[in-house]
Amino acid sequence: MAHGKPVVGFIGLGIMGQPMARNLLKAGFGLVVYTRTRRKANGLLAEGALWADCPAAVARQAPMVITMVPDSPDVEQVVLGPQGIIEGVRPGGVVIDMSTVSPRVERAIAQQLATRGVAYMDAPVSGGSWGAIQGTLAIMVGGEEDAFRRVLPIFEVMGKSITYMGPSGAGQVTKLVNQVLVAVTLSGVAEALVFGAKAGADLLKTIEAVKGGAAGSWQLANLGPRIVKGDFAPGFMITLQLKDLRLILEMAEELALSLPLTALVAQLYRAAVVDGKGECGTQAVVTVLERLAGVEARQGSA
Amino acid sequence: MAHGKPVVGFIGLGIMGQPMARNLLKAGFGLVVYTRTRRKANGLLAEGALWADCPAAVARQAPMVITMVPDSPDVEQVVLGPQGIIEGVRPGGVVIDMSTVSPRVERAIAQQLATRGVAYMDAPVSGGSWGAIQGTLAIMVGGEEDAFRRVLPIFEVMGKSITYMGPSGAGQVTKLVNQVLVAVTLSGVAEALVFGAKAGADLLKTIEAVKGGAAGSWQLANLGPRIVKGDFAPGFMITLQLKDLRLILEMAEELALSLPLTALVAQLYRAAVVDGKGECGTQAVVTVLERLAGVEARQGSA
Repeated sequence: MAHGKPVVGFIGLGIMGQPMARNLLKAGFGLVVYTRTRRKANGLLAEGALWADCPAAVARQAPMVITMVPDSPDVEQVVLGPQGIIEGVRPGGVVIDMSTVSPRVERAIAQQLATRGVAYMDAPVSGGSWGAIQGTLAIMVGGEEDAFRRVLPIFEVMGKSITYMGPSGAGQVTKLVNQVLVAVTLSGVAEALVFGAKAGADLLKTIEAVKGGAAGSWQLANLGPRIVKGDFAPGFMITLQLKDLRLILEMAEELALSLPLTALVAQLYRAAVVDGKGECGTQAVVTVLERLAGVEARQGSA
Repeated sequence: MAHGKPVVGFIGLGIMGQPMARNLLKAGFGLVVYTRTRRKANGLLAEGALWADCPAAVARQAPMVITMVPDSPDVEQVVLGPQGIIEGVRPGGVVIDMSTVSPRVERAIAQQLATRGVAYMDAPVSGGSWGAIQGTLAIMVGGEEDAFRRVLPIFEVMGKSITYMGPSGAGQVTKLVNQVLVAVTLSGVAEALVFGAKAGADLLKTIEAVKGGAAGSWQLANLGPRIVKGDFAPGFMITLQLKDLRLILEMAEELALSLPLTALVAQLYRAAVVDGKGECGTQAVVTVLERLAGVEARQGSA
């Protein structure tokens, strides 16, 4: 289409998929989209994207199809289910799943598609909706290396740090390691701030004093001040973090592996969901720790 | 003395105190030292420091005295005990405790010294022995603000990021918040790497792929690769980290505060000490998680 760039199919236009697809359109790729709730596509359709009535129809019109859906059963349904991608895709096509799902499920899908001569890549992302909008996502890719090279120009439109990690599933494993780090670090930040609040510290001053040293982290620098201001707007939602923690703990179960910190942190996120904070940003996990402490970490005027 | 700079007393010449005192000497301050094990002073005495036979004798010769000792009872002993600083210090003097100890103990000592017209500051540091040697410590200071201004030139020789946090005890509170962050973040890094190892990831590649994003931390960037290489040389020792965690949990007890992550992390460090890893660097906490997983995070040639 425009500038001779190929047509890309995009399935799943949620909080992440929508801005990622928009960046492809802006970069001059042709775009064919499908999503469960059609009105979520309205903006993109007005901007030049084409609608397809099912995943199979997307795959018939686009040699490369991206999926960005919530969970493992969703990607199985969209790729292998009735009217799924597998019914429309042609040999030589590439399917790229950018969702965060089980590495085991990705390997199984990759095997099924390989029998049809179709490459399948797992390419989950990190960076939240902010990164999706700005096209600065980190993308961790598993699958065949020659397919990776073919689709690299697409990744470069959506992300900043793009790493080929190894065979099928390796992207998801990297993402799950990333999520252990993100969830444990943020919970530690929240617990440290609650402790500081109860001990009488000026929390913003404390963050400034320690963030440049051994205590420093992306979570402390970026979400610490939001916690102190009581700003729980989502960069990444509690419910999605909890889903990722479940994937990690399921995989730990399969691998017969004990993950004590991740298990505890999952309970904190679970408690936040029970308390109605599921749609809040992950930093709202602080509210669970605040109740355990009988003190608020919110200080001063927001 | 040299360059007309004042004489500074320094008590406690361990792995941190020795390089900190040396930086004062190099910067042209006169230096009078005392430490429990006299041979630890030999190097500094050869470089021009003077020896005093007890803390009181140090205080008689130096209007400013720094203490750098392991724990709360040690600083109480050195300042208020027999032949302690309090027996030699004159009105107008300043005592600066740079140890990491209980905020409550610091406030009590400050009150006692105040009755003698002596200022007392709590000024714990972060940055480990590497930071002590390079003079790049973070220093978090509690006490009277005018005393802080008087001793700032001394801090500037030992540290890079120097923050006045508030009244007596505020420096220690900041340090303990710092230690919650450091210990939880590092334990999360260790658990994430053990998970990745068991899931078949290339760990150094994984660290590179994720460290620039939301999963990033000082601990991951600096100690992650050491874990993968099996390098447990101490920047900061397990036993000292466990002592700090005990201080935090004692303070949480006083404040009637639940700290679930810190409590779990303290158990992991305790298990490392039980296993004979007390003198190793904090990154050796990974060995505890490795046993829970039945896999080593060490990969490739060191």
